Amino acid sequence: MRSSIRRSVFLAGLLFPACLAAAWAPAPSSLEQRFDAQLSSPDQTVWMKLLAAEPNQVGSPHDAANAEWLLARYKEWGWDAHIETFQVLYPTPISETLEMPAANGAPAFTATLQEAPIPGDSSATARDYALPAYVAYQGDGDVTAPLVYVNYGMEDDYKRLAQMGVSVKGKIVIARYGKGWRGLKPKLAQEHGAVGCLIYSDPADDGYAVDGVYPAGPMRPPQGIQRGSVADMTLYPGDPLTPGVGATRNAKRLTRETSPVILKIPALPISYADAQVFLETLGGQPVPAAWRGALPITYRAGPGTRNVHLAVKSEWSLKPAHDVIAMLKGSQYPDQWVIRGNHFDGWVFGASDPLSGQVAMLDEARALGMLAKQGWKPKRTIVYASWDAEEPMLLGSTEWAETHAAELQKKAVLYVNSDGNGRGFLGLGGSEDLRHFAGQVANAITDPETNVSVAARARADIRVRGTAPAASPEAKAAAEEAADPRQDMPIEALGSGSDYSTFLQHLGIATLDVGYGGEGNSGGVYHSRYDTFEHHTRFVDPGLVYGKLLSQTAGHLIIQAADAELPLNTPDSFAAAVGKYLKEVKKLADDRRTAAESQAKMLADNAYDLAADPTKSHAPPEALKQVPKFDFGPLDAALTRLNSSATAYDMALSAHGASLSSGKRKQLLTLMQSIGQTLLVDQGLPGRDWYKNMITAPGMFTGYGAKTLPGVREAIEEDRWDDATRYIGLIAGALDAYSARLDQAVALLNG
Amino acid sequence: MRSSIRRSVFLAGLLFPACLAAAWAPAPSSLEQRFDAQLSSPDQTVWMKLLAAEPNQVGSPHDAANAEWLLARYKEWGWDAHIETFQVLYPTPISETLEMPAANGAPAFTATLQEAPIPGDSSATARDYALPAYVAYQGDGDVTAPLVYVNYGMEDDYKRLAQMGVSVKGKIVIARYGKGWRGLKPKLAQEHGAVGCLIYSDPADDGYAVDGVYPAGPMRPPQGIQRGSVADMTLYPGDPLTPGVGATRNAKRLTRETSPVILKIPALPISYADAQVFLETLGGQPVPAAWRGALPITYRAGPGTRNVHLAVKSEWSLKPAHDVIAMLKGSQYPDQWVIRGNHFDGWVFGASDPLSGQVAMLDEARALGMLAKQGWKPKRTIVYASWDAEEPMLLGSTEWAETHAAELQKKAVLYVNSDGNGRGFLGLGGSEDLRHFAGQVANAITDPETNVSVAARARADIRVRGTAPAASPEAKAAAEEAADPRQDMPIEALGSGSDYSTFLQHLGIATLDVGYGGEGNSGGVYHSRYDTFEHHTRFVDPGLVYGKLLSQTAGHLIIQAADAELPLNTPDSFAAAVGKYLKEVKKLADDRRTAAESQAKMLADNAYDLAADPTKSHAPPEALKQVPKFDFGPLDAALTRLNSSATAYDMALSAHGASLSSGKRKQLLTLMQSIGQTLLVDQGLPGRDWYKNMITAPGMFTGYGAKTLPGVREAIEEDRWDDATRYIGLIAGALDAYSARLDQAVALLNG
Repeated sequence: MRSSIRRSVFLAGLLFPACLAAAWAPAPSSLEQRFDAQLSSPDQTVWMKLLAAEPNQVGSPHDAANAEWLLARYKEWGWDAHIETFQVLYPTPISETLEMPAANGAPAFTATLQEAPIPGDSSATARDYALPAYVAYQGDGDVTAPLVYVNYGMEDDYKRLAQMGVSVKGKIVIARYGKGWRGLKPKLAQEHGAVGCLIYSDPADDGYAVDGVYPAGPMRPPQGIQRGSVADMTLYPGDPLTPGVGATRNAKRLTRETSPVILKIPALPISYADAQVFLETLGGQPVPAAWRGALPITYRAGPGTRNVHLAVKSEWSLKPAHDVIAMLKGSQYPDQWVIRGNHFDGWVFGASDPLSGQVAMLDEARALGMLAKQGWKPKRTIVYASWDAEEPMLLGSTEWAETHAAELQKKAVLYVNSDGNGRGFLGLGGSEDLRHFAGQVANAITDPETNVSVAARARADIRVRGTAPAASPEAKAAAEEAADPRQDMPIEALGSGSDYSTFLQHLGIATLDVGYGGEGNSGGVYHSRYDTFEHHTRFVDPGLVYGKLLSQTAGHLIIQAADAELPLNTPDSFAAAVGKYLKEVKKLADDRRTAAESQAKMLADNAYDLAADPTKSHAPPEALKQVPKFDFGPLDAALTRLNSSATAYDMALSAHGASLSSGKRKQLLTLMQSIGQTLLVDQGLPGRDWYKNMITAPGMFTGYGAKTLPGVREAIEEDRWDDATRYIGLIAGALDAYSARLDQAVALLNG
Repeated sequence: MRSSIRRSVFLAGLLFPACLAAAWAPAPSSLEQRFDAQLSSPDQTVWMKLLAAEPNQVGSPHDAANAEWLLARYKEWGWDAHIETFQVLYPTPISETLEMPAANGAPAFTATLQEAPIPGDSSATARDYALPAYVAYQGDGDVTAPLVYVNYGMEDDYKRLAQMGVSVKGKIVIARYGKGWRGLKPKLAQEHGAVGCLIYSDPADDGYAVDGVYPAGPMRPPQGIQRGSVADMTLYPGDPLTPGVGATRNAKRLTRETSPVILKIPALPISYADAQVFLETLGGQPVPAAWRGALPITYRAGPGTRNVHLAVKSEWSLKPAHDVIAMLKGSQYPDQWVIRGNHFDGWVFGASDPLSGQVAMLDEARALGMLAKQGWKPKRTIVYASWDAEEPMLLGSTEWAETHAAELQKKAVLYVNSDGNGRGFLGLGGSEDLRHFAGQVANAITDPETNVSVAARARADIRVRGTAPAASPEAKAAAEEAADPRQDMPIEALGSGSDYSTFLQHLGIATLDVGYGGEGNSGGVYHSRYDTFEHHTRFVDPGLVYGKLLSQTAGHLIIQAADAELPLNTPDSFAAAVGKYLKEVKKLADDRRTAAESQAKMLADNAYDLAADPTKSHAPPEALKQVPKFDFGPLDAALTRLNSSATAYDMALSAHGASLSSGKRKQLLTLMQSIGQTLLVDQGLPGRDWYKNMITAPGMFTGYGAKTLPGVREAIEEDRWDDATRYIGLIAGALDAYSARLDQAVALLNG
């Protein structure tokens, strides 16, 4: 369900000495070449057309049929496969109403909330039921109130509204999609006292402003609607009723009312054709320039002078989620699992999201099955997982991983995730100590458009974006990093938005997320009825050329992880990344301290009032809390130890890795395979104990976007000084545990 | 004719020690209080209504009538006044055509090129002739070609177009108003091989995106057209046929064909209602995000597939320009002139631009006349000038100043300019060594909306803008400067766009430019038929409250300059400003050197090609020229000398200024009054010898926007390394001459 295949922020490690690694990596072998020879873009195309033929959201007939079809394929290709079904809370819409009664001579208006079929497109030929305008886990309700426009509906937008003298208390807000994650918009609206929330897709963000609209071009047509989940993922993903445990038939469940991740107010996504009618009725001040969309109107904050009636009613029963799990047993280390996953449920047809990734993964499974039939015996067990129910909030992967948590923490070596796939540049996210492993794989795969390695092409893209006139400081830093030939291609820290979350952030399993994008454009039909086979093959990845490239990329990762002689991790790159994160966090504290001091002077001088137009309602910004000097000593010390342990590990591995006895080798593999779990802290993050990883989490106020060292970073961002100090200690402890594990490995290697 | 009353960039002096100055400044006296008591917003309102009742462009009956009416007022109020008439080239439109023939089933379209009258507005009641869609000094012509959209039509836009594989050779370009000065758009189009140029006002920049459109709100309605001059002001302003000399009846004249400031291709300004029809027909790639306007279309670069027919024909005879010049003779120093000017010609009705400033100046003249009648005898001669023909390119002021150049360089102590006036914050531009003089005046005037001084309010505004999320580095630096209580309010370096240009940049006369703005909004009707009395009094400055404030501000400057006991200049602030400019220029060289080196690596690595989508036409950027290390030694030395001479002057003035004999005082005043002329260099700037001031000039590629130390700064920006080195020497020489003048003054004071 991730909304952007191409990532814009790279937060990754530095200065990994490439000469020290590669001991684990088999030379490019005939095995990968034989694997590649099995892959077929035309077959992926046929499969996509079949899987995307009818609406396939959770609980739909075609979703269940797809699960059975996938199961049959895995079996046909020699895998030990089964379906594992969970019972999850998944509300389905009964009715939605959005209207404006006639007032002061202005006529009544009823929103269409419909996506008209487009001739020549699957949207016109499907026979099955398609979900209407809808966001999952909104609060149901029937409210009537004036409207306020809140831009992207993020916390900063509410601060700006307050300065404009506008309150959303008792109002319905209308927010545009973009900037932060969808679910934050109604959540923040609710926290600020709004009684309902509309979310629309502004043409500035993925409509006609960007390119022609579907079917003439790839972008969102006027009636297009972005569905999605608004469950509060920042607390925990998965079934809202079973946090931390599998949603098996007899699991202990919360109720809808007691689940903290379900909204209390109704919310509805709408098209820009509908939104324009409502926005045009708003009075009040024109909004700041950065708040303007591309509709041909004067954007104003409101509140509107007319009442809006919003009513949403859903059916809240449990529904089945069918994960398809397939295994190829390992010959040497059967209890070491290399796991690969991609979901198959969509919001409507889901051709780009997720089926482009699903069919790529399926092609890998066929090729691996073929290699096995030809006699290849992977050292480790390979697990392929076609996840159901990712769209509502990573339900299929989360419930499976929670159900099998103990086994996974014991056996999992690596989880490789993908989701919707596009054309263009490799995006790489995951555990920082896998940077070299993933980077070397990317160095050996050739981009079909340019005939250089996909790593080289990704680097070029990062460099060019980082030197664009309006490049952010983050983009500039990433460009510098990508330009350094001594380093592997950058790897991004992961937030959320796809099925890796539970593996990485709850269980501490080494994780990679891969996908191509940046050319073509699936964003314009994202989560709409127009994310169809026709759209994907015309505008996103014609011929599924990059579908095959994704199969190669993930497949090589899986093959090399399954057969590796030595651990995949290169702790230097982790240490370098932590060093960078710590520097950022210190700068954050300094910047916020300076900003608070400077703002205090401005407030004392009454500068905000003096600079305001007295004919418009205005207020000075809320006073920033003065920021203390934090003692980062424990983190500095932990980082020093980490760097030294990582260096010692590299040296010991270089010296003795190749000549280890098979007993010691197994011991080393066991030690290093679960090293990511040393970064978990049982009490988790403040207020959200499901997230136990001290290095990365989805941001409380960004959603999908990652926050690194979140315990301290978010505490500083959110003025929680005691938490900042507490998590400096907790993170330092986690890093020390990682270092201690390295020290054990060094002792083993040198012993 | 300046396009933005509020300036966004402050380039001014630092660290003037306020304790040293003020010797020249009379304490707030009953004189200023008596002056203020004469001012009348209601009278200004009556005068504006009268002057703006009919179209009043150069050569129109109402323009001539206004000159006579102004003359009568000056005389009535006791001034020695006359009209001085020049014969200037001023083309007036005969016919304009803009159309698209029918093609491939698409219907023909003929642009309206009309501004429909608005009921209840002067635009509907005027009887006189109003100029149609028109820009002065375009090239006339009749061309048919496809269209290319070039964004703002600046040099960077052409570079971007080249990277998109789009050429404008043989095409008609359509550029939007904004970013750079109007006249650069057709000039650059012509240089890039275009055969015609359309300029339109995008609603993103001054239309519905910003606020409601007139008459509901202040902004530009769909049919609104921005007229203006496109004479190449960057070479010289004034009559295109008489550069450097007054356009008197028998002056030696260039021909239209030999004048370098007149375009060779036809150009036409159009409304966004018309522009949308043409823009919608363009094919090709969608433009970069920063190029998008607010029309509800996909902006594409083109070239269009349909031909566009553009024809413009003008009448090119000489027309009269009537300056109204009024004098109050000085009692003590009759040959020291304090000059005040504002133009009175508009593009149509010209209520905001320029009559809001003209009526404020008129109110000053009445009040000064009244004070004189009551017995006040200003020490110096006061000259009030109501300029005609500013709009076509500063003709009235330039021809007068060129005609009287020798006398002015001998007599002028100060020129105080204003133009259209708005509501809000004081904007102050001019000679850097007048910062303290102007700042102290601004400290003593109370803002009517906030009851603090206008200086305090301007500082608050600069500070708040500098801390906004998207503030530019320049805005941040200005905010820091404005926050320093030891310094006077910032003063901006002046580029062009109003009548100060010849005084400051050609003659080296001490200059100030003052005006209020930032609240209300006149930009939306700028140079259109809707810049009317009704619009100004509803949306820009209701009640002309700030009109009266402008009278106070300029009036106090004039009174204090006329009666000052000691020189107005404080050379410290000039030295501090030069120090800042030099730092900027060095940083510019370093930044460009780094950018060229980094780009060279990117090109060597083929990064641009690898990052490009091969399905779209693209090209790498043109290679940047490698930047040498310049020897700034001469400038460093000149700055050191300047700082030391300025300090010595301040000390000497503090010690002896108050006790000078009247003979010495007069000698000192004479030395310091013309010190700005030491900054002139006779050979002027490269390729434009009319601009002789080494400290500031309108930018070759910004137009109105100032470039400081332009000889070296623009040479670095434009890869002219030899010029850079040459002007390092020339500027150093000018600074040394300024220092030498200071040293003379010091010797006089200490002698």
